[in-house]
Amino acid sequence: MAAVSLTLTAREVIFSPMQDQEMAPGADGSVGVIKPRSLTGFTPPHELKLDCGRKLGPITQVYETYGRLNRRRSNAVLVFHALSGDHHAAGRCRPDDPKPGWWDNMIGPGKAFDTGRLFVICANVLGGCRGTTGPGSINPRTGRPYGSAFPIVTLRDMIRAQKTLTDHLGIRQLLAVTGGSMGGMMALQWAVEYPSSVRCVIPIAAAARQSPKNIALQEVGRRAIMADPDWNGGDYYGRTARPVRGLGVARMIGHISYLSGRTMWDKFGRRLMNGDRLAFDFVPEFQVETYLQHQADIFVKRFDPNSYLYITKAIDYFDLANGLRNGGSLKAHLAARFKKCPSKFLILSYTSDWLYPVERSVELAEALKSAGREVRHETIQTTYGHDACFLEANRMAPIIREFLEANQAA
Amino acid sequence: MAAVSLTLTAREVIFSPMQDQEMAPGADGSVGVIKPRSLTGFTPPHELKLDCGRKLGPITQVYETYGRLNRRRSNAVLVFHALSGDHHAAGRCRPDDPKPGWWDNMIGPGKAFDTGRLFVICANVLGGCRGTTGPGSINPRTGRPYGSAFPIVTLRDMIRAQKTLTDHLGIRQLLAVTGGSMGGMMALQWAVEYPSSVRCVIPIAAAARQSPKNIALQEVGRRAIMADPDWNGGDYYGRTARPVRGLGVARMIGHISYLSGRTMWDKFGRRLMNGDRLAFDFVPEFQVETYLQHQADIFVKRFDPNSYLYITKAIDYFDLANGLRNGGSLKAHLAARFKKCPSKFLILSYTSDWLYPVERSVELAEALKSAGREVRHETIQTTYGHDACFLEANRMAPIIREFLEANQAA
Repeated sequence: MAAVSLTLTAREVIFSPMQDQEMAPGADGSVGVIKPRSLTGFTPPHELKLDCGRKLGPITQVYETYGRLNRRRSNAVLVFHALSGDHHAAGRCRPDDPKPGWWDNMIGPGKAFDTGRLFVICANVLGGCRGTTGPGSINPRTGRPYGSAFPIVTLRDMIRAQKTLTDHLGIRQLLAVTGGSMGGMMALQWAVEYPSSVRCVIPIAAAARQSPKNIALQEVGRRAIMADPDWNGGDYYGRTARPVRGLGVARMIGHISYLSGRTMWDKFGRRLMNGDRLAFDFVPEFQVETYLQHQADIFVKRFDPNSYLYITKAIDYFDLANGLRNGGSLKAHLAARFKKCPSKFLILSYTSDWLYPVERSVELAEALKSAGREVRHETIQTTYGHDACFLEANRMAPIIREFLEANQAA
Repeated sequence: MAAVSLTLTAREVIFSPMQDQEMAPGADGSVGVIKPRSLTGFTPPHELKLDCGRKLGPITQVYETYGRLNRRRSNAVLVFHALSGDHHAAGRCRPDDPKPGWWDNMIGPGKAFDTGRLFVICANVLGGCRGTTGPGSINPRTGRPYGSAFPIVTLRDMIRAQKTLTDHLGIRQLLAVTGGSMGGMMALQWAVEYPSSVRCVIPIAAAARQSPKNIALQEVGRRAIMADPDWNGGDYYGRTARPVRGLGVARMIGHISYLSGRTMWDKFGRRLMNGDRLAFDFVPEFQVETYLQHQADIFVKRFDPNSYLYITKAIDYFDLANGLRNGGSLKAHLAARFKKCPSKFLILSYTSDWLYPVERSVELAEALKSAGREVRHETIQTTYGHDACFLEANRMAPIIREFLEANQAA
């Protein structure tokens, strides 16, 4: 299965952001049925110069929007997705779609990001596999998928691509940028890169730099993919087999890191699939094993192994302190980065998150304060671990609504 | 490479435990040069009936001893190794051996387990790959290595095999059983299984049952091995390739779980191998990545992938509360299991251990107390994570020495 969905990339249309969306607000309080749109930019010779030094273009970005942009174009919120997410953040793709977008509990009428008042944008990241240009896209130089020829991209490259999208939509200043996990790090990168372009920055379950433990966890996932003979050096498009075994292992590691130990006890304990009987075999038999296997099976159907490599690498490269290469403390580095950023910050962290623990948010909040920034840091008591940023909507919503209302354009 | 070392299994000798060892106490305070011994038992028709219902035999067990058994045979300490360990716990295999045994900092003259006074025994576990019968051993029914025909074994099976070893050595009551991680769980299993056979039980960085998070981590490692085409359903002995890529991934996951996040910052931070320059490639480039890769490379040379499957499965099956299948609380279950056990317990846990966190030791200590047992639980403040049980010798030694001295046979 090729990674690029033709249905999506076929809709490369330039449209007016004011036009009616193909959307019917759902009776379930969701934004209803949503169709993705796409924007193609950076067509040669104006290619995007990447952090790695190489140029990339044309770049297609697939995105969805929810709600309406107001006349002053002052109510836009740009949402960044996490590693395994995509542009489909809210609503349903078809009326009978069994599952809504990944942040449907946060984006919709009356929700944290209230589409009755806000215009919410979410784009699939550069390097992804849901329509935005990535390793599975056609390389115009060869007429075949990029594969191993796709350049390493950074979170900065991703947001630079998305800046063309908000420019295209005619938005000079966003009300907010936000996201959980990788999305939270992209929000921070945006604030540093385009300091005057955003009023509110809401990094959730994130950090100012990727920790060595997280690099290690992601590297193991990458090794598992690259050890799969079907990976074929990254050039498996058009072949019968994709490296799904390796990707499955990577996804299992990821899933473990998203849950807390407590959640695993509550959700699975030591319960077996087969009642009381141990299998005395290497089949998955504990419920936690079959859960992980099931998650891996679903994931490998919808995700491109190469995109997993490129996006995890981009996250691992993320470091607002640039490796402290010029000496000095993390706090001093961050303070310098945020000095010119007039935005207000709301940081959310979760007590049982061991991937991006509360301390990383405390560290970030302190650096922002020392840079003279206005910061609110809220820690939510939860057993859900890192996943809390996608699950604790009821507890996040009032905090986010209050913050946005207090900081809306006058 | 076959998993069984011929040098070891060739020494199947019955010997008197009183005889002089081939040992020269080292000038470095170690026990000196140690030669492994082996014992073969359970020869058919008296095979070991395993927990899975199958029978296994003959069973060879390779072990080392340090110090001398006293005339009353009352100074013996049985040490159990962890997942990746073996019988070579202390001293050196050859005078020029660059590395001593895995617990050399704990076993030797004047150390925590003082070989000037104690007789220390350590055997490679059943299912292992260092000489004790395991999946790479010759199946007497076929004349070829067991491979996939090797039965699933439990920690209980492993200690039942080792009981024949202490019986063979003429030891009616051990002064102590101990071990870290899996070794600590084996010590607990021993106390339950042979309650009158041991005076002191010292489980270190362990738990009364394997947690779902740890099952999950180990299952991912198993999947990585079994996804490797070179695994060949477990029957790869005698073929040119072993599933080393899968085993490497499994070992990397293991290593991450043994370290604390703090240690990873201290040891590696975000430092690159290549100075300041990001590689913009998928080669290992962060120091933490090359460290893991190096650990994996070393490990796959010395460990049998099948043994990794069998031993991790045995750990995952470990549950002194039997899955709470008869209802009731963990505490009540454990209290019932330890009611008949007259041993005294010293439990050691480590603040930064997230694999077997302090809470699991607290839980165990409380259950033992409610069963009327004498328990001392010491938590050591450390940043070393789970690995602390092999590293914090200086802080463990006085606690263990004091405990053993107080409980020596009069």
